[in-house]
Amino acid sequence: MLSTCWTRRLIMLAGVVVCMSSYAYAQATGDYAVFVANNIWMMVATFLVFIMHLGFATLESGLVQAKHTVNILFKNTMIVAIGLLTYAMWGFNLMYPGEFSIGNWFGFAGWGISSPEGAAGLIAYADGGYTYWTDFLFQAMFAATGATIVSGAVAGRIKLRSFLVFTFFFVGFVYPWVGSWKWGGGWLDQMGFYDFAGSTLVHSVGGWGALAGALLLGPRLGKYVGNQVRAIPGSNMPLATIGVFCLWLGWFGFNGGSVLSADPEAVSRTLVTTCLAAAAGIVAAYFASSLLQKKPDLSMVLNGCLAGLVGITAGADTVSVMSAVIIGLVAGALVVLAVITIDSKLKIDDPVGAISVHLVCGIWGTLAVGLFSMNPEHTFLKQLTGVAAYGVATFSIALLIFFLLKTAVGIRVSEEEEQEGLDIGEHGMEAYAGFQRAAWE
Amino acid sequence: MLSTCWTRRLIMLAGVVVCMSSYAYAQATGDYAVFVANNIWMMVATFLVFIMHLGFATLESGLVQAKHTVNILFKNTMIVAIGLLTYAMWGFNLMYPGEFSIGNWFGFAGWGISSPEGAAGLIAYADGGYTYWTDFLFQAMFAATGATIVSGAVAGRIKLRSFLVFTFFFVGFVYPWVGSWKWGGGWLDQMGFYDFAGSTLVHSVGGWGALAGALLLGPRLGKYVGNQVRAIPGSNMPLATIGVFCLWLGWFGFNGGSVLSADPEAVSRTLVTTCLAAAAGIVAAYFASSLLQKKPDLSMVLNGCLAGLVGITAGADTVSVMSAVIIGLVAGALVVLAVITIDSKLKIDDPVGAISVHLVCGIWGTLAVGLFSMNPEHTFLKQLTGVAAYGVATFSIALLIFFLLKTAVGIRVSEEEEQEGLDIGEHGMEAYAGFQRAAWE
Amino acid sequence: MLSTCWTRRLIMLAGVVVCMSSYAYAQATGDYAVFVANNIWMMVATFLVFIMHLGFATLESGLVQAKHTVNILFKNTMIVAIGLLTYAMWGFNLMYPGEFSIGNWFGFAGWGISSPEGAAGLIAYADGGYTYWTDFLFQAMFAATGATIVSGAVAGRIKLRSFLVFTFFFVGFVYPWVGSWKWGGGWLDQMGFYDFAGSTLVHSVGGWGALAGALLLGPRLGKYVGNQVRAIPGSNMPLATIGVFCLWLGWFGFNGGSVLSADPEAVSRTLVTTCLAAAAGIVAAYFASSLLQKKPDLSMVLNGCLAGLVGITAGADTVSVMSAVIIGLVAGALVVLAVITIDSKLKIDDPVGAISVHLVCGIWGTLAVGLFSMNPEHTFLKQLTGVAAYGVATFSIALLIFFLLKTAVGIRVSEEEEQEGLDIGEHGMEAYAGFQRAAWE
Repeated sequence: MLSTCWTRRLIMLAGVVVCMSSYAYAQATGDYAVFVANNIWMMVATFLVFIMHLGFATLESGLVQAKHTVNILFKNTMIVAIGLLTYAMWGFNLMYPGEFSIGNWFGFAGWGISSPEGAAGLIAYADGGYTYWTDFLFQAMFAATGATIVSGAVAGRIKLRSFLVFTFFFVGFVYPWVGSWKWGGGWLDQMGFYDFAGSTLVHSVGGWGALAGALLLGPRLGKYVGNQVRAIPGSNMPLATIGVFCLWLGWFGFNGGSVLSADPEAVSRTLVTTCLAAAAGIVAAYFASSLLQKKPDLSMVLNGCLAGLVGITAGADTVSVMSAVIIGLVAGALVVLAVITIDSKLKIDDPVGAISVHLVCGIWGTLAVGLFSMNPEHTFLKQLTGVAAYGVATFSIALLIFFLLKTAVGIRVSEEEEQEGLDIGEHGMEAYAGFQRAAWE
Repeated sequence: MLSTCWTRRLIMLAGVVVCMSSYAYAQATGDYAVFVANNIWMMVATFLVFIMHLGFATLESGLVQAKHTVNILFKNTMIVAIGLLTYAMWGFNLMYPGEFSIGNWFGFAGWGISSPEGAAGLIAYADGGYTYWTDFLFQAMFAATGATIVSGAVAGRIKLRSFLVFTFFFVGFVYPWVGSWKWGGGWLDQMGFYDFAGSTLVHSVGGWGALAGALLLGPRLGKYVGNQVRAIPGSNMPLATIGVFCLWLGWFGFNGGSVLSADPEAVSRTLVTTCLAAAAGIVAAYFASSLLQKKPDLSMVLNGCLAGLVGITAGADTVSVMSAVIIGLVAGALVVLAVITIDSKLKIDDPVGAISVHLVCGIWGTLAVGLFSMNPEHTFLKQLTGVAAYGVATFSIALLIFFLLKTAVGIRVSEEEEQEGLDIGEHGMEAYAGFQRAAWE
Repeated sequence: MLSTCWTRRLIMLAGVVVCMSSYAYAQATGDYAVFVANNIWMMVATFLVFIMHLGFATLESGLVQAKHTVNILFKNTMIVAIGLLTYAMWGFNLMYPGEFSIGNWFGFAGWGISSPEGAAGLIAYADGGYTYWTDFLFQAMFAATGATIVSGAVAGRIKLRSFLVFTFFFVGFVYPWVGSWKWGGGWLDQMGFYDFAGSTLVHSVGGWGALAGALLLGPRLGKYVGNQVRAIPGSNMPLATIGVFCLWLGWFGFNGGSVLSADPEAVSRTLVTTCLAAAAGIVAAYFASSLLQKKPDLSMVLNGCLAGLVGITAGADTVSVMSAVIIGLVAGALVVLAVITIDSKLKIDDPVGAISVHLVCGIWGTLAVGLFSMNPEHTFLKQLTGVAAYGVATFSIALLIFFLLKTAVGIRVSEEEEQEGLDIGEHGMEAYAGFQRAAWE
């Protein structure tokens, strides 16, 4: 009896002990495995956003004249480097200040980057979504994008050094500071403004910078002669097409990674809305271009694809699949109208259509959240406030930076250099050595 | 005594409760983590298949004359959009009708796409392999491929609108309907026909469409003059090479994703057979080209790579590593013979060799499953039946669509337009503005 | 009483049973899920390293003259095929001989590849990091890289067949044999030499081969006339830039995959050091080029990026983030100096700067581990020993192979062929058919 009693006690305790250990261990491995998977997904998303820089480099160099190609490639390579380094030195802590914020308008969490200590700290970081390092790198890849958008709009006439100085300030300070208003938990975030992956925080911000640059620089030589509007065709359409496919590919990470975990339903659904908006943008641009330009223009269809992608970015996770198609269709038609209006009516020279794609469709996409979101808290008014706030802040600062550079060192190359091409003028080399080209190119 | 009895009871119950909770929780997290990982893999595979569209766009635009380049890029961009939208609207439910099938010949599960409700429904979907949305997008990326194969074979002479209408019907209806016979669980699936990732369902289907188009269009001007066979060289071989590397990269997802889960052994083994077949195709094409053409031709070696990939696609999961090498070697030699025969003997003008790569090697790969499969149920006869069924159905329907278009609106551009180039004729623009080219190009 | 006693016993036993089963099952799923995730990561890393072959093909074909472009593309396509097939046939077992080693200098585990039997064997393989097939394919993608580095340095003058024979021996025997000294657990590994991802084992090894080839071939015609050093500009800078972006992208897998698991902290931290070194290399090369060449040269900045990547490769996992930036800055400045010195002072003709990027910066990166590693066991002396051992062995063997080929069949094309271009001479085709080019190109 006593023995059986002891037996009972022992078996019973054994049971409890095993339970406890199994409980602890099993939970750890299960959670840890999800953490590993989440982190893999966020790293893959980071690679995809990196590919967008290849996309911008090829798209822009395909849409400019051959004589300015090296200059575009050079700028877009430098931008990635400047973006990564400034973001590591202070940008990341300026955009995500955490506690260190003054009235939700400005914050700074200190210099450099360093991971929280200990493996426990790691899985604890970002709710087990990813590591500190993944967080930094994913956000850093976003950072450089803003200036890359500007690069295309000012192509063919801006001084290399002035552009690089602008990039340093725009990527290093403007983007992370205004970004903190929403993604850093600042005042717009608390007001309820919504921008899932950056129709406004990335694309409009870049678009406002592009507009400021294009206005202060003025058009390329021979673009507007009297009432004549001369089309200056891109020199390498396969390159431009490669660019758009790379950008679309990159958008899988840009939007899919913005879920900030590998949550299967949320991520895969976001990929579907993203893809269908891009496809709808292509189709709408095809019909719009056929109607307005007689013959369907490849660059219009390519811009239609990007327009759909920029348009869906703000609400990719909160709109229905059908709404995503509508948003893409509107964006695709809108970009064709915008390119024609800006180029021919407003006579603002934007060699790659960056303002139409990123600013116009970035605004459309942000407002569309107020119209199509399945979340009633996303109101049109809140979205409009965000669009206005980013517009006023970014455009005026970008204008100021360009203006100071213009008065200090100048931002435009000489007529001779522009005529000869920035490749020879700024870099002393050609993009296509040995190929014969028409004189004016 | 009573107290100890109560203590026992309490500890005992505590033990059971902890066990139960730990059991439930641990199992959930373990399975959920595998589900998350599977879904990540399938999303990555989807991105890789998307890259194949960039691959086709660059390969085909590199192999045509410079004056037709914009047109190819335009078509391949439109195809992706048409493919995604039609597949979302009805194609997915036409290819995977589930219960809604009439005698395993035709089925339709309804319009549009919508996910089963609830998180439980999600992990329950596809045996925890991936979500509904991932399933749709992965399959949608496949859908557009068929028409992309046709695009190359009809390059340089087809009317844009006629091609787009053909694409709409071919991608929107033909591909998903005949696809349902095997992957949708239709009659060929029940008969035991096997096609792992689509040597027949994707590549031969596209190849039959390519053959139908090339036959009804006839050769490009000046291709066959009397007994003369004029070689019309591709205008941009780096572009063509980029295309093949992108296609190879995409095939990692095309075959690796067709495992429909991240099952480590199955997927990684499939990647090895896929890679070795591609490598063997390159080597065989090198020797074949050196023998038959004196000097080894780059486009032959590039086609040899694709031939090996198309050849292994039907049996990548069921043949041994050594068999994969043999299948690739045969495909690489076969494609060189096929290109020469079709171009010089049969005098069918296929500017990119699409018929040789996708139809001839698609058939070879499908039959090779009957010869090399480690699964005795895969017999040569069953494979032959599948090849014949898809050949008869797809070729005749494609021929009918092209014939109706030819009689209704015409499918071939005017001689003047073809001479001048489809870029000017259909799009009013050039691919390489500012570059001087030889008159006839 | 008895009943309650039985009840207690039953509940108690039930508890224990449930515990046991939950313990076993939960552990299995947890570990299995991590295994699946690890394997996914290693497959993704494999794809990224594959992309490096596209990167090398585009970089090199962009930096050579248009008339040698097909030849470069052809060589780089063949290299991947030769690398994969020889590695499958014996290379993998030569590099990772396991037990079958003679005094840690040479080992061979047998012909062909075959996976250990059984699912248990699979998760047991490589500590549940990945499958046998993933292991093979990841390493096989590395193998071909060595010869790809040589390809650029000998561009524009080497006979195709001689180069392919060199590749066969260099990739098939030299790379895996010397690689086994460190990664195969050989004498350098046991001595404590450290090379995380291959600054020495891959890049220096390729660089030594490049140096041997360039020395035995001599410069291209017209490169050095008397005291004149003629710059022979690359023919397609967008292509070269695409190459560098693809290589950077590939490096995420090259370094990230070298962790050999998806360990979140280790992998993501490695990606950060890798990226910041690349960015620092770009910035340093920009300033160095601006100072030494008046106008900043795009090819220098592109090489600066690669220099930073090669430099960080040996210690990406063991140096601090700040050290990674310093290593990149030094590499970026070093490569500019090296290119100028090798081209103008030493008068060794290296059309793409492969020796400067891969050999010079590979040595720098390996030695930098001795200076910056956070692991005290990594000493400068050990690193120097490794650098010397690989230098002596690889350079002398590469020199021997090239010398034997030179005496047996010759390695250099005729003057006429070189003048006309290797594309016509070796392949009977042009890279850019229909484009008019300056006579001498």
